[in-house]
Amino acid sequence: MAGDEIDRLIAVFARLPGLGPRSARRIVLSLLKRRETRLIPLADALIDAAENVRQCSVCGNYGHDDPCAICADESRDDGLLCVVEDVAGLWAMERAGLFKGRYHVLGGILSALDGVGPEDLGIDKLLARAGDGRVREVILATGATVDGQSTAHYIAERLAGHTVLVSALAHGVPMGGELDFLDDGTIEAALRARRALS
Amino acid sequence: MAGDEIDRLIAVFARLPGLGPRSARRIVLSLLKRRETRLIPLADALIDAAENVRQCSVCGNYGHDDPCAICADESRDDGLLCVVEDVAGLWAMERAGLFKGRYHVLGGILSALDGVGPEDLGIDKLLARAGDGRVREVILATGATVDGQSTAHYIAERLAGHTVLVSALAHGVPMGGELDFLDDGTIEAALRARRALS
Repeated sequence: MAGDEIDRLIAVFARLPGLGPRSARRIVLSLLKRRETRLIPLADALIDAAENVRQCSVCGNYGHDDPCAICADESRDDGLLCVVEDVAGLWAMERAGLFKGRYHVLGGILSALDGVGPEDLGIDKLLARAGDGRVREVILATGATVDGQSTAHYIAERLAGHTVLVSALAHGVPMGGELDFLDDGTIEAALRARRALS
Repeated sequence: MAGDEIDRLIAVFARLPGLGPRSARRIVLSLLKRRETRLIPLADALIDAAENVRQCSVCGNYGHDDPCAICADESRDDGLLCVVEDVAGLWAMERAGLFKGRYHVLGGILSALDGVGPEDLGIDKLLARAGDGRVREVILATGATVDGQSTAHYIAERLAGHTVLVSALAHGVPMGGELDFLDDGTIEAALRARRALS
């Protein structure tokens, strides 16, 4: 129905997360319609990223430099080490803007089903960082999923021999959340962790 | 939080139809993670499309050649001319696979609100094609929206003086559609256009 170039472009877009053939077609048409203002800038930005973005050898974040801007920032607290599953988690923490320590990106979570073990996540590297004498607290910020929580527990156990404090993000009602729309597990967690107000 | 290249890439993706900052971040992370198998092929496909895709001067479709593969296909019926709002509509018709005539892409629809008049849509070019002596029937396949239907009516009026038959796509219950989920307008249209079965 269209040229080979168009079909190929649609196929490449359709493989991206959250997209399918229909949304890929819509995007490709909008790009073809605005070649100079949309298509070319996207191609340029992709090439620029392919050439200039690298993964930080210290924390695993993506950025222009290695070590990344966060690892190189001397105003950050070396004593706080936040462990996240992936770069998306790191970015989410940064958007929240509260945390001013360092990060460690696992690059995945333990999963018996997917055959992901501790050696795949470089847990030893994390233990080495946590035991370098500067880290006071390791904050486990893996997701509140079954695998995310088992990963957090596994890391906490491995850190038991160290002198660092190990903590994890609190569970509870998300801000703006209405009880009626929450799952039972979240309500249970929020109830167990209830705080006295007076 | 990330390098300039990453922020720029996210911003470009976030402007694409159906995407926002969140889905753009997710896509960019998946591209950075699979640089060789995702990022580079996407950049290549975009450059290939930018260089080799052109708009057909006859019908308005996108393709490698001008005239496009559909206009150049000698097995198609010159007597049938299907008028669609945009290339997306043309592709949808082609996916259905039934129509074997020619197309005319309007590139928009009449809209008093957006200030789109007949001259913006090249209606004269359509009238010229419809009156070239080969076209027997003009099939109006604009959308079943207010603007789509006014556009169809406008074109039908302008074609009134010609000898061609003017038709439009039928309205009714979509295949697989359940009455309970249909709007009143569709049910009304389906009822008015009901067919005798025996």
